[in-house]
Amino acid sequence: MSKQIRIGLFGFGVVGNGLHDLLNQTKTREITIDTIVVKDPDKERSISKEKFSFDPRAILDNPRINVVVELINDSEAAYLLVKEALSKGKNVVSANKKMIATQLDELILIAKANQVSFLYEAAVAGAIPIIRNLEEYYNSDTLSAVQGIVNGTTNYILTKTNTGMHYCDALEEAQRLGYAEKDPRLDVEGFDAKYKLVLLIKHAFGVTLASESVFNYGIQHVKKEDVAYASEKGYRIKLLARAEKLGNHIVGFVAPHFVPTSHGTYAVDNEFNALIVEAAFADKQLFIGKGAGSFPTASAVLSDVSALHYDYQYAYKKSYQAERTSFLADFCVQIYAGSADLAVLDLIPFLRVETFFQGDNYNYKTGWIRFGHLKDLNLNTIKELFFAVLPEPLFTDALRTNVQSKQRDFEAVEYSVL
Amino acid sequence: MSKQIRIGLFGFGVVGNGLHDLLNQTKTREITIDTIVVKDPDKERSISKEKFSFDPRAILDNPRINVVVELINDSEAAYLLVKEALSKGKNVVSANKKMIATQLDELILIAKANQVSFLYEAAVAGAIPIIRNLEEYYNSDTLSAVQGIVNGTTNYILTKTNTGMHYCDALEEAQRLGYAEKDPRLDVEGFDAKYKLVLLIKHAFGVTLASESVFNYGIQHVKKEDVAYASEKGYRIKLLARAEKLGNHIVGFVAPHFVPTSHGTYAVDNEFNALIVEAAFADKQLFIGKGAGSFPTASAVLSDVSALHYDYQYAYKKSYQAERTSFLADFCVQIYAGSADLAVLDLIPFLRVETFFQGDNYNYKTGWIRFGHLKDLNLNTIKELFFAVLPEPLFTDALRTNVQSKQRDFEAVEYSVL
Repeated sequence: MSKQIRIGLFGFGVVGNGLHDLLNQTKTREITIDTIVVKDPDKERSISKEKFSFDPRAILDNPRINVVVELINDSEAAYLLVKEALSKGKNVVSANKKMIATQLDELILIAKANQVSFLYEAAVAGAIPIIRNLEEYYNSDTLSAVQGIVNGTTNYILTKTNTGMHYCDALEEAQRLGYAEKDPRLDVEGFDAKYKLVLLIKHAFGVTLASESVFNYGIQHVKKEDVAYASEKGYRIKLLARAEKLGNHIVGFVAPHFVPTSHGTYAVDNEFNALIVEAAFADKQLFIGKGAGSFPTASAVLSDVSALHYDYQYAYKKSYQAERTSFLADFCVQIYAGSADLAVLDLIPFLRVETFFQGDNYNYKTGWIRFGHLKDLNLNTIKELFFAVLPEPLFTDALRTNVQSKQRDFEAVEYSVL
Repeated sequence: MSKQIRIGLFGFGVVGNGLHDLLNQTKTREITIDTIVVKDPDKERSISKEKFSFDPRAILDNPRINVVVELINDSEAAYLLVKEALSKGKNVVSANKKMIATQLDELILIAKANQVSFLYEAAVAGAIPIIRNLEEYYNSDTLSAVQGIVNGTTNYILTKTNTGMHYCDALEEAQRLGYAEKDPRLDVEGFDAKYKLVLLIKHAFGVTLASESVFNYGIQHVKKEDVAYASEKGYRIKLLARAEKLGNHIVGFVAPHFVPTSHGTYAVDNEFNALIVEAAFADKQLFIGKGAGSFPTASAVLSDVSALHYDYQYAYKKSYQAERTSFLADFCVQIYAGSADLAVLDLIPFLRVETFFQGDNYNYKTGWIRFGHLKDLNLNTIKELFFAVLPEPLFTDALRTNVQSKQRDFEAVEYSVL
């Protein structure tokens, strides 16, 4: 690509504004913003009105523009813009995880056919260069797991609830600080994290997943009693997006986890993100950084834009594995489930209960379940219940018999009061 | 470069052996080891003798070999081998930090003239992809600091001494486990960390430094009283390689630090390495991973080898900064210095003492010093003294007046007994 990069920018929200300021401050002469297109002509913005256009054609039909940066909220509109831009031979950089997770394979094909790049580092874990690292660095190594905190909003809220604040107060504080949306469901119910997980799985294991097939359960039902249980055991509650290899299978899901002090994410607080990559030979690696925010995200966008100077493209090197790797939606996992209502607790179909606590005001069970059974329960809607994954290995179905045959003299029942 | 990579391997120690096994296990058909040259014909090795050659010409004069992987101990011999290999148009991957830190600019020129690549990810922090990240990911971002634990041997020893073990016992254990050499000076006196720091500074700030101009002080004089002081204040002792921007200057040095719980390296123990990258826009990022060992290091070597498939070269993008950036050997820093001998403690020319403790068996001072003054003291040889940097910002000379003018009513003196 020619040395001069001329950007057509869709959207001027937090990240778009950040990119604009960042380019101004770094005075990168080889990269300029040619045209900015926004939707709402009346919105107050930090720079003067004349700088904006309101017609997407001002970018899409502009032959001067060789890079489209897509930073709008509406994932369906984004899809159409990105698709047309790629079709017209423009490189595209996007941070729209939902759109990318949903349409990736089609967009890869269009980019390929038009010999342009489609990059999206900013879509996963903000400033942490995880996509580029999975692409470039582990290609000769066999990855066994990728997991971590990929949503800053929920990590901020959990940081507060982990120290005793009520969930509703923590959410309200996050909203006041601009970390959470007015309608926070996309974040707190784990959807945002799931879209990111779909992208991580694509780059780590070569497998394309429909996001509907990936389980996500959020943090919105966490109660102080659940936090008390976790603290008592030395755990903290973290919302993890988690993918790992079990034999020839890939499992992947988003759920709250009880993490021990030895876990890489234990001390990762507030709006920070963290990713743990487990590789056969490189061993465990941990990446921590800001997962959101104007400058951190804009910085990731700009890194992608800069890489276009040398025509960088993702090679999706792990895709060769896809044929012999299948996604496994059902496996065995040890969980904790808590509820004030015993009948609600009974909804969870435990294979075997390890501990069962009944209190005056709260009850919980821990034990092994088949993950597939959880999927049918629509847990994000059951307000009276909270569950979290315990720090025990996952088992495939084939291994489940081992778990069940483990000889136990009794099923522990605790009768103490919280 | 052609799809087929044929390696000429110099050295079959821990890392060379690891690379051999790793290639066997991953069955990467596009990468094969053509010839292995070792020095000592009589040494016992894990594979049969016929696989080895003892004449460097078997690699250097072999036109089939397009990649030389240099993994020998002798840095001067390595330099000659690498230089000739590059001159003959062979790509080179090396893990020899001392050789690279000493000869980098010359080797870059030779590689360029012969249109081949010279890569060395494994030379810094083993499996952590730090060089590649500094090269590729922060190019559009302004870095303000790079610091961390880059020597696994000393981190292992400090992990032990931080929990009360005597330094000599910890060193002995590290030697028994193969983490430390018989002559451990290169590691424990901070030389190994310094060579790595020189490479980090080159890729982070574009500046080439002679390693002699960089201060290094190690961990070999740490006493249990120093550890007790650190613990009392909630600190752990870590050997940090540290480079940061102070105005238009770069400062860089290797020294023990007292790190608080909030520091990214606080909980990084045993043979693990950690790097903290501070960027103006991406904000703080932390990378943690295995810094040494057969497979982690071999995995980094293999990542470099794989990148040769697409003719990857370091671009040294930050070099444009070098003209307006100078290395500053003198600046102000707050340190702790401890000794059983008061007269030895007096060797440290404090600008201002903040605390002064005299005990029956041990004494210490904390306060501000000019770093330049420390360089003349040859501290690695003074057994009776230990010093560590305190968690306070560094100041350039220009700012020093601020420190001195800070009004203080008294200089605190502690009389309590340890």
